[in-house]
Amino acid sequence: MNLFKLVEAVGVFAFALSGLIEARRRDMDLVGLFVVALVAAFGGGTLRDLLLDRTPLFWIEHDIYAIAILGLATFFALVPATGRFPQSFLLIADALGLGLFSIAGAGYALEAGTSTFIAALMGTITGTFGGVIRDVLCNELPSLFQQTPLYATCAFVGCYFYFWLSHLPLPGDAAAWITIAGITALRLASVRWNWVLPVSRH
Amino acid sequence: MNLFKLVEAVGVFAFALSGLIEARRRDMDLVGLFVVALVAAFGGGTLRDLLLDRTPLFWIEHDIYAIAILGLATFFALVPATGRFPQSFLLIADALGLGLFSIAGAGYALEAGTSTFIAALMGTITGTFGGVIRDVLCNELPSLFQQTPLYATCAFVGCYFYFWLSHLPLPGDAAAWITIAGITALRLASVRWNWVLPVSRH
Amino acid sequence: MNLFKLVEAVGVFAFALSGLIEARRRDMDLVGLFVVALVAAFGGGTLRDLLLDRTPLFWIEHDIYAIAILGLATFFALVPATGRFPQSFLLIADALGLGLFSIAGAGYALEAGTSTFIAALMGTITGTFGGVIRDVLCNELPSLFQQTPLYATCAFVGCYFYFWLSHLPLPGDAAAWITIAGITALRLASVRWNWVLPVSRH
Repeated sequence: MNLFKLVEAVGVFAFALSGLIEARRRDMDLVGLFVVALVAAFGGGTLRDLLLDRTPLFWIEHDIYAIAILGLATFFALVPATGRFPQSFLLIADALGLGLFSIAGAGYALEAGTSTFIAALMGTITGTFGGVIRDVLCNELPSLFQQTPLYATCAFVGCYFYFWLSHLPLPGDAAAWITIAGITALRLASVRWNWVLPVSRH
Repeated sequence: MNLFKLVEAVGVFAFALSGLIEARRRDMDLVGLFVVALVAAFGGGTLRDLLLDRTPLFWIEHDIYAIAILGLATFFALVPATGRFPQSFLLIADALGLGLFSIAGAGYALEAGTSTFIAALMGTITGTFGGVIRDVLCNELPSLFQQTPLYATCAFVGCYFYFWLSHLPLPGDAAAWITIAGITALRLASVRWNWVLPVSRH
Repeated sequence: MNLFKLVEAVGVFAFALSGLIEARRRDMDLVGLFVVALVAAFGGGTLRDLLLDRTPLFWIEHDIYAIAILGLATFFALVPATGRFPQSFLLIADALGLGLFSIAGAGYALEAGTSTFIAALMGTITGTFGGVIRDVLCNELPSLFQQTPLYATCAFVGCYFYFWLSHLPLPGDAAAWITIAGITALRLASVRWNWVLPVSRH
């Protein structure tokens, strides 16, 4: 349980950082930094909860996350050196967040009574749509939709793998942890070897 | 009833196609094709249901539509020739979808107890906002807002016509079918003779 | 109470006008003018209500506002001279709307049981996010996120001031009115003397 909360905090932190870096690139002020970071961290889970009619929202109930992101955004607004963040750290933390958010989101969807296809879709939305709304707010074509290394695909395939694993006689949360590790590894491998989905030429 | 389901499927198919064509134009990969098509098909109804607090969402309950759209998106991602879709077929199917979605949306709004003005607005949102969110995700100024042949206007006027028709002693679903045909015809005529709303010059 | 309704109407009117002016600058037709004005006026409150799961939505229950905005949009679509609106009037009305919407939004959030931080955030969202969604629909980087005179900051600081004031033994709605006046004054002073938040250079 505690490990779960730790990985969750790492995921929120990584997603918020991705928002801060995007916002900084556009010379946004503190308000922009904070909002884009908040959206990147909680946009996916919020959209899922709106679609599934789950309440109250996670970040509204636990305000510590929003407060921490405001603190982080203030730091980014005041300290010039924050632009030089190690890319590899961000990549790993983001991949971890993708894995954790997707599996958690798929689990919530199944609880709400959806089919496995919709649950895998909700898991993927949880893991990826913070980034989509971040890009829309930043007036960019969402990178999720473009031919970049596998991202949503890792989450979607991972969710199905998780459903299959859940039927096996595994101890405790083993199915979830194995899948989170698998999604993280698949994402990192996709970046390393530039695995992309095909795009048909016109 | 079966005719209703058939026209609905045609409308979903047409709206999904409009999303696929937009997404393809931007060289999106399978993830982008799928999401933009899903949003184009169900964005309007989803926004309406969120605004009216109706649950569960149609496409979450009936996952066959999302699965079919994923299949269609895969086809578009793999087959180059999909770019050459007959424009006239798309136009007619889209006009049918506009009519059906608008009338269905207005009906749901009235059921939820809204005034006729809000019901006509909700009907129009159902028929048109999938396209607006599609354009926003594709980083474009929504074509709905620009001086293009009448689109939202057909739906809005059609909804009022439907409310008036509903008071007449017509058999079964006649009021709905007459209005759907009327919206479709008005839309096609607007495209044919380029009927637009005036825009005041500066 | 009547004064409250008057200030509210002024705020809705000001926010709708900001949308009409943005939409007009892009040569949108009546549909675009109406939707962008409606979103600018009610987008913030609608997002707040969706996040807090409050129903029914204000503008759905009181359709007179949407009807009035449609009338205003029609006027803008037909009369060329509407482009020459006195900038100072718009600025003052918008600042009043910011103050009123923020305090009302923070109050609704507290009623829904949120913490004070989340309530201040919800108040700020109520006052400012209509403009963000307006800018997203107009395919622009939201001006809220950029280094422009204090806007969201006035609302956020004002909400905390309001919470503190609410503990004092003041008569009736005095705490709300004092804060609304304060937010309005702070906003106007920010524009007058160009107070901005710092942006760290790369």
